[in-house]
Amino acid sequence: MRLAVDAMGGDFGPRATVRGSIEALAALPELEVLLYGARDQLEAQLGSLPRSCRNADIPERVTIVDAPLRLPDTLSPSRALRLPSLSSGSSLHAALQAVVDGRADGCVSAGATGVLMALARQQLGMIAGLSRPAISTAIPARGPGRCYLLDLGANVDTRPTHLLQFARIGAEMARAVDGVACPRVALLNVAVEPGRGERRIREADELLRRQHHAAFDYRGFVEGDGLFGGAIDVAVCDGMVGNIALKSGEALIELLVERLSACFQHSWRSRLASLLARPALSRFRREFDPVRYNGASLLGLQRTVVKSHGSADAHGFGWAIRRAHHEIAGQLSAGLAAALATGAAG
Amino acid sequence: MRLAVDAMGGDFGPRATVRGSIEALAALPELEVLLYGARDQLEAQLGSLPRSCRNADIPERVTIVDAPLRLPDTLSPSRALRLPSLSSGSSLHAALQAVVDGRADGCVSAGATGVLMALARQQLGMIAGLSRPAISTAIPARGPGRCYLLDLGANVDTRPTHLLQFARIGAEMARAVDGVACPRVALLNVAVEPGRGERRIREADELLRRQHHAAFDYRGFVEGDGLFGGAIDVAVCDGMVGNIALKSGEALIELLVERLSACFQHSWRSRLASLLARPALSRFRREFDPVRYNGASLLGLQRTVVKSHGSADAHGFGWAIRRAHHEIAGQLSAGLAAALATGAAG
Repeated sequence: MRLAVDAMGGDFGPRATVRGSIEALAALPELEVLLYGARDQLEAQLGSLPRSCRNADIPERVTIVDAPLRLPDTLSPSRALRLPSLSSGSSLHAALQAVVDGRADGCVSAGATGVLMALARQQLGMIAGLSRPAISTAIPARGPGRCYLLDLGANVDTRPTHLLQFARIGAEMARAVDGVACPRVALLNVAVEPGRGERRIREADELLRRQHHAAFDYRGFVEGDGLFGGAIDVAVCDGMVGNIALKSGEALIELLVERLSACFQHSWRSRLASLLARPALSRFRREFDPVRYNGASLLGLQRTVVKSHGSADAHGFGWAIRRAHHEIAGQLSAGLAAALATGAAG
Repeated sequence: MRLAVDAMGGDFGPRATVRGSIEALAALPELEVLLYGARDQLEAQLGSLPRSCRNADIPERVTIVDAPLRLPDTLSPSRALRLPSLSSGSSLHAALQAVVDGRADGCVSAGATGVLMALARQQLGMIAGLSRPAISTAIPARGPGRCYLLDLGANVDTRPTHLLQFARIGAEMARAVDGVACPRVALLNVAVEPGRGERRIREADELLRRQHHAAFDYRGFVEGDGLFGGAIDVAVCDGMVGNIALKSGEALIELLVERLSACFQHSWRSRLASLLARPALSRFRREFDPVRYNGASLLGLQRTVVKSHGSADAHGFGWAIRRAHHEIAGQLSAGLAAALATGAAG
């Protein structure tokens, strides 16, 4: 399996993407990576890695492809599409093109979501029946669980039929990547009783109840507190709702960790406690670090594209690569095409 | 100042509401409380309070009014309105009626939101220009701050003009209760750039930019991660978005605290640390305990009504009473009527 990595995107560029790629290569022996970016920068990063990262066969599994242009952060998606002369020389465009040409099985980028989505859609094309990708990520849940939340902002002003598509897409994600035989799918709403809440959600609920879904187990409505309970595998919502829930949740975790540290600096006793508690606290941080769940999938494209958080460090970027790997290994794109074709016929 | 308390509502009924009322009375010397509920249960609760709660003049500031009927949790708002014979004998109805008759300045209940809102609207009436109350609560923010989020679920399928009303309402809240001279108000959206996101939010943004708002400082869009940053005083959104953000945030805090405790049970070293860290950890829990922020305000009614979390304990219920007290002391209802009248004229 070969992944094309846009090594110039994100807040840290090659500093995060190169090392993140090496971490993923160490964990996934059958993976190869094509790094698209400024050759000198990428070579410098590779050369500066600690010896532990350079052992074994890893260097043989990395290929640098010179594509020095980093798309400006201020570029709008529509300008990126209108000015192919600008975008076509970029590391992102080149990485996506490797997927189009069959030189790679999928693409990972930490570039801006809007531009990534626009170019991916233009270069790779959508699965029949879909007009725009949905964005999804896995959020932590009780038990060993996780829950896929979608859409996360690619689609606002959605109609009931879109929510129905998201249900199919999310179910296929849980099946292909996590091996859940019959994923439990719910619609996010302000109440659990049928007939309550937003009109489009009530209509989507009717659509979901009316049809028989062999591919998943439709559980009706779930409220916001049900996201982390471990009782569902997929939570479906409009992009506005998912985007606000995800971003506010991330910021809340950050605030909590900050305040927790402050509490531990309060007295000599708590400072002593924090010394002793260091392993416990770092275990806690590790578990809730957003990078653990880093990697938002652009779903509905003909091929796998994963967006890493712009602020992700090397470790976070490595997780995004693993996510792309799992999606390709689970043949998610083909599964989605099949699921949506069945849905359209059903 | 006198508050009417529906003492039968919530998961714990009089066990939480009576003691919570006493806590609030101890903190607020000028407050009087009318407790509506089953006289024998309320007297038993009052009699069982520890001596520390019974000192001074508190007993003189509590009046029990016998209204034994507790509305069933399964009652729908529309049935509550259609069957006055059922609801009119209830502790909630009686407490609201005390406000209508001028025997109390406001009402606090931990009963179901839908029924509380329906009866409050019917009995107290709305401020001119509003059709339904907005629900708002204060969420924690960086610095000494807090941020009012609204709407939290009373209004879904909102139109741009509703969002404009929420902006006026939230600003008046921050002014009347927290003394913020010119509250910073923002619209929640998936992006901060003008022209992006949901259509109704873009339209509300235009409405807010077009008009001059002497009463607040309109800051444009804010994303979900901006809720806790301390840079805004009021965040405005549709009820669906606010409801999901609030409930998922509460559940996330619960999950984090649970996992944090588990991390501290991991080894002898972390168990020792947790003994030493106990004050730090309880300081942390206190700070993020939703009861600290307990009390969602039903805004736009002719008088003050505060809804306590159904699962709040006595301490949490006491905070809801304090919130009602602050709103009445700040003359919030009159301020809202003035703000909305100006808005309508403007």
